[in-house]
Amino acid sequence: MDPYYKEALDQAKKSLAEGGIPIGSVLVYQNNIIGKGHNKRVQDGSVVLHGEMDALENAKRQPASVYKNSIIYTTLSPCPMCTGAILLYGIPKVVIGENVNFKGAEDLLVAKGVEITVLNDPESIQMMQNFIQAKPALWNEDIGE
Amino acid sequence: MDPYYKEALDQAKKSLAEGGIPIGSVLVYQNNIIGKGHNKRVQDGSVVLHGEMDALENAKRQPASVYKNSIIYTTLSPCPMCTGAILLYGIPKVVIGENVNFKGAEDLLVAKGVEITVLNDPESIQMMQNFIQAKPALWNEDIGE
Repeated sequence: MDPYYKEALDQAKKSLAEGGIPIGSVLVYQNNIIGKGHNKRVQDGSVVLHGEMDALENAKRQPASVYKNSIIYTTLSPCPMCTGAILLYGIPKVVIGENVNFKGAEDLLVAKGVEITVLNDPESIQMMQNFIQAKPALWNEDIGE
Repeated sequence: MDPYYKEALDQAKKSLAEGGIPIGSVLVYQNNIIGKGHNKRVQDGSVVLHGEMDALENAKRQPASVYKNSIIYTTLSPCPMCTGAILLYGIPKVVIGENVNFKGAEDLLVAKGVEITVLNDPESIQMMQNFIQAKPALWNEDIGE
């Protein structure tokens, strides 16, 4: 497995172990992970720290040139909020673990010229499927449903 | 002035007084402000807490039914990230202080059926214009440029 994706997946597993929503993400710049994170709805009561947002937040303030030469990895297809953050900062590439359990605003990313790669990693699919079955109300809250 | 918009503007002024970016927001549900906030880039080193995001965060976890019956007020046209958050949570109405200094993803909001009202409030326009002239690098960082 791609080592960057593995770290995103490890972040998702960390969140699951904490009782949280198992979605993780890393931001990679020049072959280095500069931010990693996971969904913080349960852990911090946050409604904005989805996995991708937490990775961006943990990367701290960066000049535009960093974002525009970075890749963001996420275990699940990015929701409209995370898609918007990717577009705001001009991140040109997104590697998505899976879009079987949830398909976010991928069409918008593509329309705006962002390169997306969907892995549909079996372990990621299974983990998310198990979580949604176990905690449907929490999952629905996370996607505004 | 609409009392909800006044509170959003007061939040922007509070941020300015703290040395931060003067953008404020409030989330209103059933005629009550349930969350208010302002840009936290300078204050907290945050890259995700734009005004609207901070108002959503401060409203804490809410059921979908609350968002879907709320109005969000913001002093400046929502960027793609904040637009995405509004779409994620299904907030049906957005009141925008001004879109003279910056026009965000209003077209996407409208395309998705969100009702927008643009006040173009002179005080808000002047405050933001003064800020951008005084701190152009900080402003550019906030919009990923």
